[in-house]
Amino acid sequence: MNDTYTIGVDYGTLSGRAVLVRTRDGAQIASAAHPYLHAVITDHLPGLARPLPPEWALQHPQDYLDVLDVTVPALLRGSGVHPDDVVGIGIDFTACTVLPTTASGTPLCFLPRYAAEPHAYVKLWKHHAAQPQADRINAAAAARGEPWLARYGGKISSEWAVAKALQLLEEAPEVYHAAERFIEAADWIVWQLCGAERRNVCTAGYKAIYQGGAYPTREFFAALNPAFAEVADKFAAELHPLGALAGGLTEDAARRTGLRPGIAVAVGNVDAHVTAPAVGATGDGELVAIMGTSTCHVMNSDVLVNVPGMCGVVEGGITPGAYGYEAGQSGVGDIFAWFVAHAVPPRYHDLAEERGQTLHELLTDLGQDQPVGAHGLLALDWLSGNRSVLVNADLSGLILGLTLATRPEDLYRALIEATAFGTRLIIDTFEAAGVPVRDFTAAGGLIRNATLMQLYADVLGRPISVAASSEAPALGSAMHAAVAAGTYPDIHAAAAHMSQVRRHAYQPDPERHRRYTRLYAEYRTVHDLFGRTHPTMITLKRLRDEALAQPQPAARLEVPA
Amino acid sequence: MNDTYTIGVDYGTLSGRAVLVRTRDGAQIASAAHPYLHAVITDHLPGLARPLPPEWALQHPQDYLDVLDVTVPALLRGSGVHPDDVVGIGIDFTACTVLPTTASGTPLCFLPRYAAEPHAYVKLWKHHAAQPQADRINAAAAARGEPWLARYGGKISSEWAVAKALQLLEEAPEVYHAAERFIEAADWIVWQLCGAERRNVCTAGYKAIYQGGAYPTREFFAALNPAFAEVADKFAAELHPLGALAGGLTEDAARRTGLRPGIAVAVGNVDAHVTAPAVGATGDGELVAIMGTSTCHVMNSDVLVNVPGMCGVVEGGITPGAYGYEAGQSGVGDIFAWFVAHAVPPRYHDLAEERGQTLHELLTDLGQDQPVGAHGLLALDWLSGNRSVLVNADLSGLILGLTLATRPEDLYRALIEATAFGTRLIIDTFEAAGVPVRDFTAAGGLIRNATLMQLYADVLGRPISVAASSEAPALGSAMHAAVAAGTYPDIHAAAAHMSQVRRHAYQPDPERHRRYTRLYAEYRTVHDLFGRTHPTMITLKRLRDEALAQPQPAARLEVPA
Repeated sequence: MNDTYTIGVDYGTLSGRAVLVRTRDGAQIASAAHPYLHAVITDHLPGLARPLPPEWALQHPQDYLDVLDVTVPALLRGSGVHPDDVVGIGIDFTACTVLPTTASGTPLCFLPRYAAEPHAYVKLWKHHAAQPQADRINAAAAARGEPWLARYGGKISSEWAVAKALQLLEEAPEVYHAAERFIEAADWIVWQLCGAERRNVCTAGYKAIYQGGAYPTREFFAALNPAFAEVADKFAAELHPLGALAGGLTEDAARRTGLRPGIAVAVGNVDAHVTAPAVGATGDGELVAIMGTSTCHVMNSDVLVNVPGMCGVVEGGITPGAYGYEAGQSGVGDIFAWFVAHAVPPRYHDLAEERGQTLHELLTDLGQDQPVGAHGLLALDWLSGNRSVLVNADLSGLILGLTLATRPEDLYRALIEATAFGTRLIIDTFEAAGVPVRDFTAAGGLIRNATLMQLYADVLGRPISVAASSEAPALGSAMHAAVAAGTYPDIHAAAAHMSQVRRHAYQPDPERHRRYTRLYAEYRTVHDLFGRTHPTMITLKRLRDEALAQPQPAARLEVPA
Repeated sequence: MNDTYTIGVDYGTLSGRAVLVRTRDGAQIASAAHPYLHAVITDHLPGLARPLPPEWALQHPQDYLDVLDVTVPALLRGSGVHPDDVVGIGIDFTACTVLPTTASGTPLCFLPRYAAEPHAYVKLWKHHAAQPQADRINAAAAARGEPWLARYGGKISSEWAVAKALQLLEEAPEVYHAAERFIEAADWIVWQLCGAERRNVCTAGYKAIYQGGAYPTREFFAALNPAFAEVADKFAAELHPLGALAGGLTEDAARRTGLRPGIAVAVGNVDAHVTAPAVGATGDGELVAIMGTSTCHVMNSDVLVNVPGMCGVVEGGITPGAYGYEAGQSGVGDIFAWFVAHAVPPRYHDLAEERGQTLHELLTDLGQDQPVGAHGLLALDWLSGNRSVLVNADLSGLILGLTLATRPEDLYRALIEATAFGTRLIIDTFEAAGVPVRDFTAAGGLIRNATLMQLYADVLGRPISVAASSEAPALGSAMHAAVAAGTYPDIHAAAAHMSQVRRHAYQPDPERHRRYTRLYAEYRTVHDLFGRTHPTMITLKRLRDEALAQPQPAARLEVPA
């Protein structure tokens, strides 16, 4: 009997990446990527001059369709696999990335009358203009004692669906009322593939406050705005577990992709969560850290508790039958990128060029032989705020221990260590709340830095497994497609055969771990000083905002980017 | 009647600078400088291969004589002033800069038998190898309840004479016993000019623990080391007030300098302290900040109290008849130099070059238009430890408020602000202890940065006067020479006529002061958190020292300087 294959498509922030994998063993036979023509729309809508307000981040849904049209045929061509042997397709997406559509799923921005209306487009996950709405959601939920609030670490994000829907209502009521559906892009693209609206439990749970079988009450929504009472009618009453069959591929979608009509289309998923099966980490307490510009932590557990300061816990949010926990560090790789862009003097640039390295590689190499603690520095990894444990976007970064002997490689290493301490504190917080963390697997772009991964192992005092596929989310989506197609009975079985992981690739050094534990104690002290006890950082941001609200003198001098 | 003139010679760390000034009005008629041939000796003695240990910093006394031989004739030539019209000469020196000599004042290093002995040379102020001895002095003083300890903020520095003498005894006993005198270079050069040992009250008080008319007791010295009991015999029983006549210029010194024999030679002084009359700040509560790589604060007061954490208070230490207080910030200009050397990316270097500016100038210009607080940052100015208020060399620098939008000019400005907050806290500490600070005058290299000076005025909420002479210490020495010569009855009268100052050149902006006061409150919070409450910084330095005490792997990669 022939091998069978599935396709996974991972919709990222700037492009879609697709893989074709063999269901027998998860081998990646072909991959293809396609950048979004409109990328992230932050300045103005295509073809229009009117500027978007600050903090806006939109996308164009046509770009998502283009990814299918370009990458899937490319996979078939590149692999030589016959379409008859491809048994299913699955997708994952950034989230919360949402758009308003008609009852039949047509994006409002496709309709000529709304094409010039920013609110008719996709609001990307990092659209942050709904913060006033999020603040009101949190205040109202706290005042009313809404039981679901604790499931989200006590705070609903401005990135999430309810805040974005409320912004839509209040800033563009006509569009809001025209939007018969308000839907995650993950579910929308599945709808385009199988012809039916089949929403997933994951985004509903983590992003749309679906808890215990229900959205927040009509009364709660009305308390935010009387016209908002029925917003849940724009969501979906029926939700589908991850790995479920959403439907068969439509004739139309088959024509566009070159796949066979009727093959399995899996229910949509989220890029972080779908990575867990891709690295074989679907069991109780198997934490997966997706480490890139920020880090997202996902973990299944048999235990349901409210862990203080975590982003969310959703039943079946990662795999059916387990409680899926999500946590995060809002800045990781982007902290290192900030440092490299703003704080490294010319002689390092010259040396990196001479060695044919990036500055990241050079600084990593320069710092790697230091004994633990030799730089005398301690940093807090809050340059983008704190997403988990403290859940406070107004916190900021800190470095202490500076002397006249402090060098760039010392600072760079201290920043890496700060992110590792942040990860350790998230793990400790889970465990202190009664949610055991049994194993640690890393995925994402940062796993290419072996020195960084060894440092994390030393800080955590745990072996670290790492994703062996460079397209782990797409692989995870292909695995869900295999489940939806019936090739495997469930995602655990699919993961057992198809996951790609370098098991325990990094082992902690006991002596370095012992020394890091002493530094970590100092990290916790400073973490609590500025995260819980002293509002210094909040005060500084308030003073900054006040200063920037004054009329500003025109800058007399600017540095070229 | 002809105008008369005096000469002042300022002995710095790397060179001597001399001025010839008119006594009537302090006008600077000529100036000359001469670098020390041996500069600072840190690696090995001249002509010898044997390396010096770490933390050593020596000088060669011949270099000091060369300064006289070169600069004074140059002043006379350059000015056209007739030697008959020069009525006196005065000098000031770095301190505590000390050397062992014979009973007749010959430096031991001039004797062939000691020429190869490092301990026979001048120990420069920044020779830091006597820290173990200083630690023992402090422990013994605290244990014995020595009354003078509080006069020095509770801590004797390793830079000071007693620690350096004890190191001499314990590491080179033969040299110690051969040293009939152990003398400040300030007093030694006066000896070479007037042929008599005439020591000054200032260095004895601030550097040799001379308080209330006596050095520490024989019993105290014996407690440090039995062989150290009689060390005070190497100092001087008789001390002379600043501005007193040390003697007439010897025939020999007159031949070397071209001056008339017998003219007045003033008692020696210290570079910081002599600056006070140079800027006309000899009155009660008139604080002078000499702002360079570090900042030294000197101030006369009518009040004698122990101010917690100050470097010293000495009766007549600045001018006769007042209590002279000294305080300091151990890192100021060198913090900015560290930042520029280690944390500024190439595009800033390029822009500075294009504009024909230093990086200091560019960063200052880029940051100067920001409203107060707009960068959202707060820093602690402890990259070289804290010299006053906390008196702890193991404290370190801190920056908080970092975000991904933080730019180099923001950090640079935050570091300047940190040093200004540090100055404000020293002033507040004086005043809280009952020592009023009535006026603030700045001298030193940093006064060339007008933006920085305005920022200090805004932070302090006080007008700032600045030295108008670029050779303020040498001018101060020339003023003391005029007093010693009898041209003026005392230094106050000399200062009234000869001082050079731009009175209240910077006025505080009330609104910026108000906003800085809010930031300063945060500075005090963080200052006390890490300076008093939490030993985090001390712990980090201990961990650093432990790490560096381990066998180190050979560095595989180094960055060219």
